Amino acid sequence: MGIDYARYDRIRAVQWRDDHLRLLDQRRLPFEEAWLDCADADAVAQAIRDLAVRGAPAIGIAAAWGVVLAARRGADLAAALATLRAARPTAVNLMWALDRMKARIAAGADAAALAAEAQAIQDEDLAANRRMGALGAALIAPGSGVLTHCNTGSLATAGFGTALGVIRAGVAAGRIAQVYAGETRPWQQGARLTMWELVRDGIPARLIADAAAAHLMKTGAVQWVIVGADRIAANGDTANKIGTYQLAIAARHHGVKFMVVAPSSTVDMATPHGGAIEIELRDPAELLATAGRRTVVEGAEAWNPVFDVTPAGLIDALVTERGVIERPDAASMRARFG
Amino acid sequence: MGIDYARYDRIRAVQWRDDHLRLLDQRRLPFEEAWLDCADADAVAQAIRDLAVRGAPAIGIAAAWGVVLAARRGADLAAALATLRAARPTAVNLMWALDRMKARIAAGADAAALAAEAQAIQDEDLAANRRMGALGAALIAPGSGVLTHCNTGSLATAGFGTALGVIRAGVAAGRIAQVYAGETRPWQQGARLTMWELVRDGIPARLIADAAAAHLMKTGAVQWVIVGADRIAANGDTANKIGTYQLAIAARHHGVKFMVVAPSSTVDMATPHGGAIEIELRDPAELLATAGRRTVVEGAEAWNPVFDVTPAGLIDALVTERGVIERPDAASMRARFG
Repeated sequence: MGIDYARYDRIRAVQWRDDHLRLLDQRRLPFEEAWLDCADADAVAQAIRDLAVRGAPAIGIAAAWGVVLAARRGADLAAALATLRAARPTAVNLMWALDRMKARIAAGADAAALAAEAQAIQDEDLAANRRMGALGAALIAPGSGVLTHCNTGSLATAGFGTALGVIRAGVAAGRIAQVYAGETRPWQQGARLTMWELVRDGIPARLIADAAAAHLMKTGAVQWVIVGADRIAANGDTANKIGTYQLAIAARHHGVKFMVVAPSSTVDMATPHGGAIEIELRDPAELLATAGRRTVVEGAEAWNPVFDVTPAGLIDALVTERGVIERPDAASMRARFG
Repeated sequence: MGIDYARYDRIRAVQWRDDHLRLLDQRRLPFEEAWLDCADADAVAQAIRDLAVRGAPAIGIAAAWGVVLAARRGADLAAALATLRAARPTAVNLMWALDRMKARIAAGADAAALAAEAQAIQDEDLAANRRMGALGAALIAPGSGVLTHCNTGSLATAGFGTALGVIRAGVAAGRIAQVYAGETRPWQQGARLTMWELVRDGIPARLIADAAAAHLMKTGAVQWVIVGADRIAANGDTANKIGTYQLAIAARHHGVKFMVVAPSSTVDMATPHGGAIEIELRDPAELLATAGRRTVVEGAEAWNPVFDVTPAGLIDALVTERGVIERPDAASMRARFG
């Protein structure tokens, strides 16, 4: 598919600037395009913890540059690696990127060589996204409607996006006629970020409440649910933003197809199945306030898991830059990633 | 079950005050207990349209008092009935209550007789809720966890609540140990209203994102999903707040039981099945702002259905004041309500 990347790949949220890392502060979108300048690894770790940068691939890329910053400042690299690694527990890309940097450190790389490695991680991610876009879009019948969740676009990656990359490629190829995006409470990545990307690109898109997804499927408006991943286990079980599992159950109920799109760095063959994936629980306060305002009575409690696990059996297609696996299971995963 | 109603039934959101109707303005909860005084039927209709009063039974009660106000002022009763009837399309209790008032008007009732009828509708609703509370709670095994959606409590009814009445009765009887409440975007009735009621009553409750329900079920924390209804068709298909259908699908997937609790006035035997129920679409702007603040980029579109239909086949128990129907279908519905 010939895609007009000048039109559909214009956003770069993680930018290396000679001596510091610039991050598009995703907490302030869609209303303010504010940039955060990180001068050391601690600042990068803080940005990851605070969700100024989010999205599994983007976190990995930012962390790799955090190591470069530590090396340039002559900081303790082992400490920097540990701090960055602890910033978010669920995204395996973070660990994967840091392992790559650690291997280069062990091989005696200097700051310049580490910068080359971080740049390679970033460039490879963009290339993977474009490849996945073409592979995923090819699965979709012309004129389809699709539903996505959270933000998996340029903001979450080096550029173009994973699930949103497939959507961009599908729209560019005339295969996708209408996109629906779930709000993705409590952080509203769908409402704030995905809609921002889609409107910027002129892609026909409608926001829905997360709870409206099954009703939408019942109307026949969507043929595919397309989501990203934060960690994919050896049997194909996939951890992703809270609500993904619910979408997969509803999709199967309605005969709607379910596609996971993620770079192979998201696959963790050391995790045998989804039950072994640590699910990050975040502060209940995130649910007790909305858009910065308290919405719930004082004294209320909340349960705030931010990821869930979709079993491989509910996944119709797993798209990585290495190709498409239909109905992934332990055998097909081992054959591709073992 | 002996229930301490002095503890568990203290909220009255719809209050007749001699010459006007006082409504607890539900748009301003949980932070402000502001009351809206309605002096005529138009003001009541406006309060219904604007969601100052919401919840199918409460809407019906308020509308009945709206007719009383029209009669007391010597207004055109046919016009008042029409205005009130058009205020919300999905809740059948509204039509049912207005039909009762219309029949009394046709029989020559004066304002005092109409007030007696409105009071009867209100009193019967409270009695029905207490009866349903006992019936529904009896289905629940001691120590259970339950999940509810939207607000079906004292705020949505004459008092005590439908689904929340069952929950109150279940807590009082030691059958329910933990309540989870979904936020219920976009209006956040769960976050704002249900949590307010539960915290007030000292009931152990945790708020969850709507999208976290399936993950919650997977953890084994809930044995029942308990919801209300806005309209129940002749075959048991049930229209309720958007997201209910999604919960029912997820519940069946996990072997979690699904209970619908509603007064028999919610049953509409003239509607053959769920496909014949008009689903209210509200202003997309409700999704584009959150807690009064715009959260989505300018130019974005949204799709905002506020109800969905849960097919009878996904309902394990339908509780009305006339008793429990397990796995409702056209035959069992006809036998009870025909």
